[in-house]
Amino acid sequence: MVMVVDVPGMVRLLKGHGVERFLAELTDYISADFARWPSFEKSPRAASHSKVGVIELMPTSDGELYGFKYVNGHPINTRSGKLTVTAFGVLADVATGYPLFVCEMTLLTALRTAATSALAARHVARPDSTVMALIGTGAQAEFQALAFKAVNGVKRIRYYDIDAGAMAKFARNLAGSGLVLEAAGSAAEAAEGADIITTATAAKTRIELVTEAMVRPGMHLNAIGGDCPGKTEVAAGVLDHARIFVEYTPQTLIEGEIQARPGTAEGVTELWEVIAGLKPGRQSATEITLFDSVGFAIEDFAALRYVHDLAAGRGGAAELALVPTVSDPKDLYGLLV
Amino acid sequence: MVMVVDVPGMVRLLKGHGVERFLAELTDYISADFARWPSFEKSPRAASHSKVGVIELMPTSDGELYGFKYVNGHPINTRSGKLTVTAFGVLADVATGYPLFVCEMTLLTALRTAATSALAARHVARPDSTVMALIGTGAQAEFQALAFKAVNGVKRIRYYDIDAGAMAKFARNLAGSGLVLEAAGSAAEAAEGADIITTATAAKTRIELVTEAMVRPGMHLNAIGGDCPGKTEVAAGVLDHARIFVEYTPQTLIEGEIQARPGTAEGVTELWEVIAGLKPGRQSATEITLFDSVGFAIEDFAALRYVHDLAAGRGGAAELALVPTVSDPKDLYGLLV
Repeated sequence: MVMVVDVPGMVRLLKGHGVERFLAELTDYISADFARWPSFEKSPRAASHSKVGVIELMPTSDGELYGFKYVNGHPINTRSGKLTVTAFGVLADVATGYPLFVCEMTLLTALRTAATSALAARHVARPDSTVMALIGTGAQAEFQALAFKAVNGVKRIRYYDIDAGAMAKFARNLAGSGLVLEAAGSAAEAAEGADIITTATAAKTRIELVTEAMVRPGMHLNAIGGDCPGKTEVAAGVLDHARIFVEYTPQTLIEGEIQARPGTAEGVTELWEVIAGLKPGRQSATEITLFDSVGFAIEDFAALRYVHDLAAGRGGAAELALVPTVSDPKDLYGLLV
Repeated sequence: MVMVVDVPGMVRLLKGHGVERFLAELTDYISADFARWPSFEKSPRAASHSKVGVIELMPTSDGELYGFKYVNGHPINTRSGKLTVTAFGVLADVATGYPLFVCEMTLLTALRTAATSALAARHVARPDSTVMALIGTGAQAEFQALAFKAVNGVKRIRYYDIDAGAMAKFARNLAGSGLVLEAAGSAAEAAEGADIITTATAAKTRIELVTEAMVRPGMHLNAIGGDCPGKTEVAAGVLDHARIFVEYTPQTLIEGEIQARPGTAEGVTELWEVIAGLKPGRQSATEITLFDSVGFAIEDFAALRYVHDLAAGRGGAAELALVPTVSDPKDLYGLLV
């Protein structure tokens, strides 16, 4: 039997375990897998493009477990009340090839994205950071806010979105979270007094959401929204003054903020190198740091591994008979007799 | 909600609908998809190799539906009573990227392999073929026998395997099928008087199971077992005298019988070209034909499409909440409130 965590199952896990505790533990799983980065098989994504979107399969393996994520990206879906991005994932046993675990990953992708942001900030933001500007209060916003609270000690969120409804939704959802929430009238106002600026908008083009005037010495920029070709949120001038951290340089050069500096990965550090102790993280209290996040398969692998362990430990997970049990491997037809 | 057909669900479908009717209808679905072959996106497989096996994702799309199959190949599994090959598959809606259907494919792969063999034989075997030699009575054997009965009018099976237990299992499973079953003492004896020779052994090397002496004018050879690099069942001399049909030449050159003739695809016809009316099938009653089958993603796509339609039509299929339903696409966190 294959263990299954569907959407209601994930909601039950999150409510039962606590979202912040989930995010903190997930951050540690991602950290553990980033620390052994070279042991992973890093395959290219298998992408199927259509006129309205893309469907991708993102596989990876550490030699013991194999995981893949199915994920779509369809910006037009919001017109019909559907999600732009949905996802699910599978873990399998490399030794037998048998699938072990099927998991919803629409919620889990939002959670692992926030946990990865928090992990990066743990190494490259100022340790005394307590105020975060959050620009863009869409589907990712609450997860970012809670991950930075749980992992990094952020206490105050200054938030802004061009959609007042999205700002109201954000404030409503986090009303009882213990975070101090301060609505701002612009991105620049949100950035005032912030230690960290997180950008998570659905901007579809190269916009300059974070300008040089907004960035002060010692700030950490957590750039989530620039995550596909032709989509960036940080002004090119800001990139010139920041030390830049990425997940996987070849992918970030195509999808990340650094596509605004075409052809060069000079001075860019991969986050796993910092976590593994091979490269320094933040080097001074005045340095400006930027985590240029686009998402990577090892984060999904760590997230599947965490939820599999968590669900197994809590018991009561659903199961699916996705693989036959046979008494004689040559007698597959015997299942029908 | 995503429709699910797990292993018990597939067994119920097959018993309720009838295996032969299922195979005949599946053959027609595969035929319909082969007839529109150029409309499919043919992506490379994403393969993850380990010391003991391989895990592959095989995606394809026709622009309306996207499908992929997860499949493993672990020959050592039989030592621990597990299956060498297990599989499951997914269909998704290209317009939204939402998954629609999750289906077991261990049984379904055996069924589609047999249906594809029957489809090839419909076009390239002699129409008056009634006697089939079946060499190798492992997991694929009963499905081949029943597909050729249902689709091609085969009435008599002459069967042989080096494993007497596998022969007994085959005879037992098909005792009430209406097929005349004749056990043979060797592959050559099985081939005597046969119109069609099907080879479906688990040979792991290049063996010469079908020799020139066994092949007579007008025969059709259905070579299922030669399906990975270094694994063939038909003597090179036989290939020289047969007109060869394949699924997809670039893949068959690596995995099929024709790897015994390295570097040349001369004279090889892709089956879809015959079905689409672009190339002739069998041209005379004395021609020797060979279907060099290795399996292809479009067969899995057609099989998923068929089972999805069949299960929807019969009602009562299981469902899985793999994708969230939200009232506001920006309010993913709202699922937790």
